[in-house]
Amino acid sequence: MLTFGEIELAARRLHGVAHRTPVLTSRTLDDLLGARVYLKAENLQRMGAFKFRGGYNAVSALTAAERAAGVVAFSSGNHAQAVALAAQLHGCPATIVMPRDTPASKLAATRGYGAEVVLYDRLSEDRAAIAEQLATSRGSALIPPFDHLPVMAGQGTVALELIEDVGTLDAMIVCAGGGGLLSGCAVAAKHRLPAIELYGAEPERGNDLQQSLRTGRIVSIEVPDTICDGQQTQAVGVLPFEVIRATVTDVLTATDDEVVAAMRFAFERLKTVLEPSGACALAALMVHADRFAGQRVGVTLSGGNIDLDRFFSLVSGRH
Amino acid sequence: MLTFGEIELAARRLHGVAHRTPVLTSRTLDDLLGARVYLKAENLQRMGAFKFRGGYNAVSALTAAERAAGVVAFSSGNHAQAVALAAQLHGCPATIVMPRDTPASKLAATRGYGAEVVLYDRLSEDRAAIAEQLATSRGSALIPPFDHLPVMAGQGTVALELIEDVGTLDAMIVCAGGGGLLSGCAVAAKHRLPAIELYGAEPERGNDLQQSLRTGRIVSIEVPDTICDGQQTQAVGVLPFEVIRATVTDVLTATDDEVVAAMRFAFERLKTVLEPSGACALAALMVHADRFAGQRVGVTLSGGNIDLDRFFSLVSGRH
Repeated sequence: MLTFGEIELAARRLHGVAHRTPVLTSRTLDDLLGARVYLKAENLQRMGAFKFRGGYNAVSALTAAERAAGVVAFSSGNHAQAVALAAQLHGCPATIVMPRDTPASKLAATRGYGAEVVLYDRLSEDRAAIAEQLATSRGSALIPPFDHLPVMAGQGTVALELIEDVGTLDAMIVCAGGGGLLSGCAVAAKHRLPAIELYGAEPERGNDLQQSLRTGRIVSIEVPDTICDGQQTQAVGVLPFEVIRATVTDVLTATDDEVVAAMRFAFERLKTVLEPSGACALAALMVHADRFAGQRVGVTLSGGNIDLDRFFSLVSGRH
Repeated sequence: MLTFGEIELAARRLHGVAHRTPVLTSRTLDDLLGARVYLKAENLQRMGAFKFRGGYNAVSALTAAERAAGVVAFSSGNHAQAVALAAQLHGCPATIVMPRDTPASKLAATRGYGAEVVLYDRLSEDRAAIAEQLATSRGSALIPPFDHLPVMAGQGTVALELIEDVGTLDAMIVCAGGGGLLSGCAVAAKHRLPAIELYGAEPERGNDLQQSLRTGRIVSIEVPDTICDGQQTQAVGVLPFEVIRATVTDVLTATDDEVVAAMRFAFERLKTVLEPSGACALAALMVHADRFAGQRVGVTLSGGNIDLDRFFSLVSGRH
């Protein structure tokens, strides 16, 4: 099981490399919800999302010889860029397996960090198999997006910094896809504040973790139809779930419309740009505010990688 | 002339009341420009702009008896909300004179801070005369938007915090309308870092300060036709100009299209929302980057009060 010591080690590795992201507060939001809300702005993290922390820590955790043989990852999202950038910073080669229909801007960003991109057909090919084969044939290390202790430990530094900056919290709401961020934050938060209540946040139509937590076993679902593209995982990771089951109070959900409302609120009132999954925890708080009345609540704003056209089409109701 | 002591006093008054806004950095921006850039995110300030600092300090500087008689301001922009909020926090009445065609959201925000709003007709009435008459008849204090030492001192805390947070800087670029922010920042920055070069930033079609600085006397222009609505002043203030003339190296300009490009860059790469005037200093840096090659440069992101529809109509080229 993930330990606090691994998160502290990750924090030392990330010091001076990752941004120590600011904590945003808004009296308007506090008044609206009747709570004191502390928003950890990981949309302002390097490459635009918390994923950099886990990717960097995982590459750091390799031996020099392992790094020299390169790293491989598969992702159409933020993990791809996180591993590409982490590899570049360590001076080691990276190969990222991405779907052929990945937006050009994301391909360009990943290649911009010096990674080799291998494209596959989303409908006919299995990206995990391609990545594993590449890793085996090249002797490279595969960096999984969430089901991997060094990745979870890196993500846990989000909660560590938040608590260092704002002090005690009654609750923390963390968005969950594969559970890397939630499990890392849970271990860090419970170590520092044993009485804190941890909550996951998921899109309503992709509530596999909610089902898993409530039934006590990992529930797998079809690829969920949601705008929250960072949370289209079909099942939580085994290692994250081990932590989540032991530490997390409940998983809250928000509909896509509620997520869009949170993105709009963040733009207009917080002056900050969130991608849908990056707004999911804020949306869950806004929908379930009655649970947190009078409390001090930490919330992750997990990412801001969305292009202008997509953002505008979402907030103008064309999704 | 504004002194550093007045800025220090303002900093003490604002401590715990104003947000200590974060400094954003972007390696993408640094690589693009060949400089180290430190962006002071005053768009994340209370009420969404640096104006809160000056407004609050000016209300604080009144005696209790003066405050009890209320404050008056005229503004269609951020100064209106700044004075309204500052008065509310001091428990004193505020009257804000605003044009009849002010967007409903700004009227609502100003009234939301408890201020009385007096509307006037932009074409046929003189807002300054209305405000002065109101102040006289009620015995209230008029809080000018920039040509007023306590306002300038409050704005100067922006540079004070920036330098405290990032250390030495070779240059600082500060957007300029009436010159309140630029003059305050100039006094603070030159006190802390005597060798720093100060630059103003103006929209190209509203370059009255550039003309004034280059000719050595205040030049007044027609109301400029620019999207930078926070910089549609016709002339710099007398008190700010006294400082600017003695401390500022030059004023750089950016076209409206260049300002929009900076807003787009801020959204997509910095994940932060800027109104046009809030992006003016960043635009000026991006256009004149060759002047700052290899330097450590501070830049004000002065405000983020723009609604979604206006933002997208600007970035999609419909201005």
